[in-house]
Amino acid sequence: MTPVRLALVPGEPAGVGPELCVRLAQRSRDYSLTTFADARTLQTAAKALSLPLRLLGPDEPATQPGELAVVDIPNAVVPAFGQPDPRNAAAVIGALRDAAQGCLDGRFAGVVTGPVHKAVINEGGIAYTGTTELLAEQAGREVVMMLANDVVRVALATTHLPLREVADAITAPVLERTLRITHDALRHDFGIADPVIAVLGLNPHAGEAGHLGREEIEVIEPLLATLREGGMRLIGPLPADTAFLPAKLRGFDAVVAMYHDQGLPVLKFSGFERAVNLTLGLPYPRVAVDHGTALELAGHGTADPSSLFAAADTCARIARTRIDARQIPA
Amino acid sequence: MTPVRLALVPGEPAGVGPELCVRLAQRSRDYSLTTFADARTLQTAAKALSLPLRLLGPDEPATQPGELAVVDIPNAVVPAFGQPDPRNAAAVIGALRDAAQGCLDGRFAGVVTGPVHKAVINEGGIAYTGTTELLAEQAGREVVMMLANDVVRVALATTHLPLREVADAITAPVLERTLRITHDALRHDFGIADPVIAVLGLNPHAGEAGHLGREEIEVIEPLLATLREGGMRLIGPLPADTAFLPAKLRGFDAVVAMYHDQGLPVLKFSGFERAVNLTLGLPYPRVAVDHGTALELAGHGTADPSSLFAAADTCARIARTRIDARQIPA
Repeated sequence: MTPVRLALVPGEPAGVGPELCVRLAQRSRDYSLTTFADARTLQTAAKALSLPLRLLGPDEPATQPGELAVVDIPNAVVPAFGQPDPRNAAAVIGALRDAAQGCLDGRFAGVVTGPVHKAVINEGGIAYTGTTELLAEQAGREVVMMLANDVVRVALATTHLPLREVADAITAPVLERTLRITHDALRHDFGIADPVIAVLGLNPHAGEAGHLGREEIEVIEPLLATLREGGMRLIGPLPADTAFLPAKLRGFDAVVAMYHDQGLPVLKFSGFERAVNLTLGLPYPRVAVDHGTALELAGHGTADPSSLFAAADTCARIARTRIDARQIPA
Repeated sequence: MTPVRLALVPGEPAGVGPELCVRLAQRSRDYSLTTFADARTLQTAAKALSLPLRLLGPDEPATQPGELAVVDIPNAVVPAFGQPDPRNAAAVIGALRDAAQGCLDGRFAGVVTGPVHKAVINEGGIAYTGTTELLAEQAGREVVMMLANDVVRVALATTHLPLREVADAITAPVLERTLRITHDALRHDFGIADPVIAVLGLNPHAGEAGHLGREEIEVIEPLLATLREGGMRLIGPLPADTAFLPAKLRGFDAVVAMYHDQGLPVLKFSGFERAVNLTLGLPYPRVAVDHGTALELAGHGTADPSSLFAAADTCARIARTRIDARQIPA
C-alpha cells in the first residue's frame, strides 16, 4: 500500500508551528509529509530543539522518523522566535495556498495546518479572516467548521460573528447547508454509515415551547422535519446545557451548535490538547490544530504537540477513508 | 452546638421531589430538616421506596436518619406518580412561600428546594416564571443565579432570555449588580476572603479587539476597570471557549457568564449529578437541585438523589458560615 501523501503547513514562522512540525516529523507514521515552508526556518526550529531533521525533495516520500519532504517557500525576513513580522505574511499565505492547490490538483491527499497570526497577516497587507475562509474561497466551496476530540465532534452553524448577529444568521438555508455538509462528512470522512446528529436550539432550553424565543418553532424544527423525511437521523432541537451530558454525547456522532460559544466550551474543557479543527465540505480533508501561535513558547520546545499529532493522524485517516471509497485518486 | 435548621421544599408532588426528600432524610447529618409539604405525600413516597420515615412536629429538631420535621401543607388532590395536577399548584407555591418566609423571619437558616413543574403551576392559574424569581420578589432583593459543582461555580448575568435579546441586556448596571452579588456571596457564603472572578466576554473570542463585536470594549472592560479600582479581583473579559480549560478554572473562584448557554454546558458536562443551583443575594441561603421533576421516574426509587444531597449539604455549610460571621441569628 502506498502511504498517503499529506501536505503540512506550519503557519506563522515566529510561533510554535515550525517546531511542532519538527516534532511531528520524529514520529513513526504510515503517511508521508511534505511541508510547505521555508527550509531554513524548519532547520532553525530543529536546532533549537536539538532534534534531527532530514529534509527531502518535494516529491520524495517522507515517512521515516526525522524526515520531512519540503516545498521551499522562502520567508522575506528570517523570523525571530516570538516576533511575527508582517513582511512574512505573503510567505505564510502563499504556503497555505500552494499546499491547498496541491490537494485540489490531486498531488496530496489532504492538508494539515498549524496556527496563523491573523493580525500580522492583515498588517502585512493581506486581507485574511481565517484559513478556513481562505481555503473555502480558493476551492469555491461552502464549508463547515468542526472541532473534534475523542469525546465530542462539534460543527458550527455560525462561527466568528458578534453575538447580536447570531439569531438573524440562523436561517433555514444556513442550517440545511451545515447539516448536509456535516452529515456527508460523517459518512464519507468518518465512515459512519447512518450518523446521528444532535442539533442544539438557538435559545436557552431550546426556546421552552416558544416562551424563550421562537426560532426553534419557526426555523429549526420545520427544517429538521424535512431533512428527517429525507432520511437523516437528527435529534433536537436540544437544550444546549444538557445536550453535552456525557451519557447523551455517547449517543451522538456529532453535535451541531448554533454558534461559537454554545458549542466550544465543552469541547475545549474535555480535551483541548487533543482537539483538532476540521474544514468540512472541501474536495480534500483539511485538519488544523486547535490552538494559536503561542508566541511566548516559540523556540523553547515546551509547546504541547498533541493537537498537531492528532490533526495529522486524523487527516491521514480521513484521506485513507476517501481513497478506500475511491473518492479521490490515490 | 445547636444544629442549623433548614427548610426543605420537595416541589412538584407528582415528581421525584418527595422521594428524594425521603432519601435525604435517611442520611446522617449535622443539620435539622423541616419539610414544607403534605405529610401524606411524604409517607406515600417513603412507602413506595420501602424506606422508614418518622415525621416530627414543625419545631422539633430532625437530625436523625429517617426523621423529617413537617409543616403540613395539604395538597388539594392526592398526587399520582408522574401526573402533575394543576389543582395542587397553590400548595406547591404556598410551600415555597412559607418556607422562604420562615427564613426571612429567622426561624430557619436556609432553604433547600426540589424541582417545580413550571407549566403545571401556570395551568393552575398562578403566574410563575421560576422559584428564583419568586423568592427574589418575596424578599425584595435583586439576585443572581449560580450553578455550582465541585469543578466550577458559574454565575449568570442573564438567565432565561431569548438569545436575540441577550446583547442589549448586557448593560453596565446589570453586570455591576451581577459581579457585586457574586463577589459578596463568594466572600460571605463561601468564606473566600479575596475571591478571583473570571468574567467572560459576550462575543466569540471576547470580541477579538472589536473585530467580533464591541460590547467588551464599550461595556465590559470599562466596568471591570472601575470595579478593580474598588479592590475586586476580576479576570477578563475572557473568551468563553478557553476560559473553561481545567488548568484555568483552577485559578478562578467563580466564572461570570453573560448568558445561559455560554455558562452552563461545561458545568453540566463536568458533573451534572452533583450540581446545585444557588440564589445569591437573598437574606438567607437558598440552594436547589439542578434537575427537573423527572416525572417518568417518580415512585420507582431510581432517581439519583446526589443533587439534593449536595444542595442540602451546601445550604447547611453556607448557613453555618453566615452564623459564624454573626450575619444571621443562630
